[in-house]
Amino acid sequence: MTAQQDPVQLTASEAARKIREGLVTSTDLVKACLARIEATDGQLKAWAHLDPEHALAQASEMDTIRQAGRPLGSLHGVPVGLKDIIDSKGLPAERGSPIFAGRVPEEDAAVTERLRDAGAVILGKTKTTEVAFVHPTDTVNPHNVKHTPGGSSSGSAAAVAAYQIPLALGTQTNGSVIRPASFCGVYGFKPTRGVISREGVLQTSISLDQIGVFARSAEDTALIADVLKGYDQRDAKSYPRPRPAMIEGYHADPPAEPALAWIDLPFAYRMSADAVAGFEELRGELGTRVEMVPAPPAFAGLVETQRILHEYEICQHLQETFEAHWDQISDTLKPVIDRGRKITHTAYEDALAQMQASEDFFHAFFMDYDAILTPAASGEAPVLGPTTGDPIFCTLWTLAGLPSLSMPLMVGETGLPIGVQIVGAQEEDGRLLRTARWLIARLQANAA
Amino acid sequence: MTAQQDPVQLTASEAARKIREGLVTSTDLVKACLARIEATDGQLKAWAHLDPEHALAQASEMDTIRQAGRPLGSLHGVPVGLKDIIDSKGLPAERGSPIFAGRVPEEDAAVTERLRDAGAVILGKTKTTEVAFVHPTDTVNPHNVKHTPGGSSSGSAAAVAAYQIPLALGTQTNGSVIRPASFCGVYGFKPTRGVISREGVLQTSISLDQIGVFARSAEDTALIADVLKGYDQRDAKSYPRPRPAMIEGYHADPPAEPALAWIDLPFAYRMSADAVAGFEELRGELGTRVEMVPAPPAFAGLVETQRILHEYEICQHLQETFEAHWDQISDTLKPVIDRGRKITHTAYEDALAQMQASEDFFHAFFMDYDAILTPAASGEAPVLGPTTGDPIFCTLWTLAGLPSLSMPLMVGETGLPIGVQIVGAQEEDGRLLRTARWLIARLQANAA
Repeated sequence: MTAQQDPVQLTASEAARKIREGLVTSTDLVKACLARIEATDGQLKAWAHLDPEHALAQASEMDTIRQAGRPLGSLHGVPVGLKDIIDSKGLPAERGSPIFAGRVPEEDAAVTERLRDAGAVILGKTKTTEVAFVHPTDTVNPHNVKHTPGGSSSGSAAAVAAYQIPLALGTQTNGSVIRPASFCGVYGFKPTRGVISREGVLQTSISLDQIGVFARSAEDTALIADVLKGYDQRDAKSYPRPRPAMIEGYHADPPAEPALAWIDLPFAYRMSADAVAGFEELRGELGTRVEMVPAPPAFAGLVETQRILHEYEICQHLQETFEAHWDQISDTLKPVIDRGRKITHTAYEDALAQMQASEDFFHAFFMDYDAILTPAASGEAPVLGPTTGDPIFCTLWTLAGLPSLSMPLMVGETGLPIGVQIVGAQEEDGRLLRTARWLIARLQANAA
Repeated sequence: MTAQQDPVQLTASEAARKIREGLVTSTDLVKACLARIEATDGQLKAWAHLDPEHALAQASEMDTIRQAGRPLGSLHGVPVGLKDIIDSKGLPAERGSPIFAGRVPEEDAAVTERLRDAGAVILGKTKTTEVAFVHPTDTVNPHNVKHTPGGSSSGSAAAVAAYQIPLALGTQTNGSVIRPASFCGVYGFKPTRGVISREGVLQTSISLDQIGVFARSAEDTALIADVLKGYDQRDAKSYPRPRPAMIEGYHADPPAEPALAWIDLPFAYRMSADAVAGFEELRGELGTRVEMVPAPPAFAGLVETQRILHEYEICQHLQETFEAHWDQISDTLKPVIDRGRKITHTAYEDALAQMQASEDFFHAFFMDYDAILTPAASGEAPVLGPTTGDPIFCTLWTLAGLPSLSMPLMVGETGLPIGVQIVGAQEEDGRLLRTARWLIARLQANAA
């Protein structure tokens, strides 16, 4: 491959185009990804399960379809990694817990089904924290192996950042897509709640669980999110009406320069000094496009609302599992379960009402703004430790089901990435991506 | 509405465009369809179940979404009718049989789910023959009420032909989409077996049942087929790879003038004299683009192969239902069931092998041809009687799972429509629609 780019460097959009045009085969790309994983994953530990033979068989089928001149899907031949709480027929799905050791589902998750329909190659399963909750896995940050990649979608974020794979799926119940994307320096996108079906994905919180994606460009997040979207009546939060056209939104030009809101969050003190300075500078660059907005008093309480919903629902839904396998649960998770079990049904119902109120608030809020500009995390990735970092800068948006995108646009004082998050109105994912493209171009123009 | 077109006259593509552009609301269109049904269905009897209030509520939601500037689906606001063996949550699905009287499913069929995702309005359920098999319903032909509309998708074909609705869904196990389309003078399209999921549709033959659509233009059949397509692992015949891009295929220009094959079918003697003459004339107009091809000897046996699969499988799958409700089965169907029950498993296995052999034959056949040109039915719709007409001109293509399109391009001796059928290679639905557009344009050019 002298003088040629290593295919692992390609974004998903570039890879899909090159495969379509016959410049690269899916087999070449998958082989390159497998070689890169072989070379780097001993240290990175991003993958829970790989099946090279299965991946190469899929790649070969996609190459055959292309050679026959048959129709190609929008991810034709492009490899994708799945967080290990997402089922893929015949591949293990052990959910980051010994409780599920040896579990091999016989059905694809709805998202896996949609990926196959688009011609994607399911490369394998990426590491997740224990049942996608608090206890870390052994994945490390590709920018500094002494730091956390973030969680709970640790392996997906790290694998995309390390050029092991162009695309991966994760889930977010609090900050599990946006935070690892920020820590690993990749794009992380969580569409509006209800856009993507969660059927076949481990349920932790029926109210809050949402599917998200990791990629190395904003365009790629739109490309794969369009593949994943779709009504699915088996998912109680899936809605039966048309979905945002995300790639079209990404490519659209804003009718006017976007109006961004910087909300003075009650927990802003949890930001690191370098992040505070970085965002000050960023707001300066965006000038009048950013309006400083005080937080409504109710915001402080919403963090607790999210906690109640999350902990109550995971304890209810996994009650039997937790009881039957108490010895196999980490000491990090046990106290959280103990706390969750004590939440009363009344407190839970109040939290559901608060969640609805937050949705109503943002519905009105986005009449005046295109997006909220906000940190993706409190700063750089912390060193490896008992948690995967502070999710609080994602909590409110997850609670309200808003589309959120983390962009790797800043670098912290030790050279690790810091994500810039933008948040949009429900079901306005296309508009959010349009705003993202504008913002990235604006910063590039300023820098030039 | 002075000097304005009645919205019921719009094709689905036109209606979708006008709704998108704000020239017509979904509510106006649905009201117009309901008024047309009210005025004509006393005689036509195309509808099994209508729920105007439910339909208008869906239309109103789609209008609200459009007014809010939110993303629109490709059938946004366009009403669709469903054959009464296809489930739609909350609407009766009585399957043309007293056995299922009062049955109201709680889940949507996969196709209904996909229609909602595209913004379509589920208008109601159209009449089917008894369990989509031989015994007619009371629907009449909109061109002459003394003639059959064809079956088993009788109501769907008649409703689209009578301008009650722009689009409807049907199913075909032998000739149940193509034949009623031919008799009613509309476009009928049955994509490749496995393109569209049958989940939530009454199963009669797992090998042969296929979903099809009715519309008043070839473009419309592609538009709705693209909405319906998609991998669904719950359907054993659904395949996990990219699907034909049908509307793109329709709009594509053939790289060269298509090569059509007219096969000298062993049952050609069952055509009426006017159909024979009409097709002779048609072949003359197409000149060298049509090659006359003798039928391979195996073709004669394939009609029996289809019968064995169909009758064996329906008797197996509905065995308990038929036994428990024998008194509620028509005297037309009873002898067919009696016959089906006597088919041995060995004969069935032989038939499965023959079906596979037919697929292999056509796979090679379509290396040399773009499409087979063939009658859609034996001629004009027969007068009302104990059957809904002869399906034999559809049997082989259904057996092999080939995409088939009936186009209302001829008129018989008593002024009733006669369909021209073209049949393509598996998973080459886009190419078939491309050939259809070319053929229609060519005939128009000849006529000019």
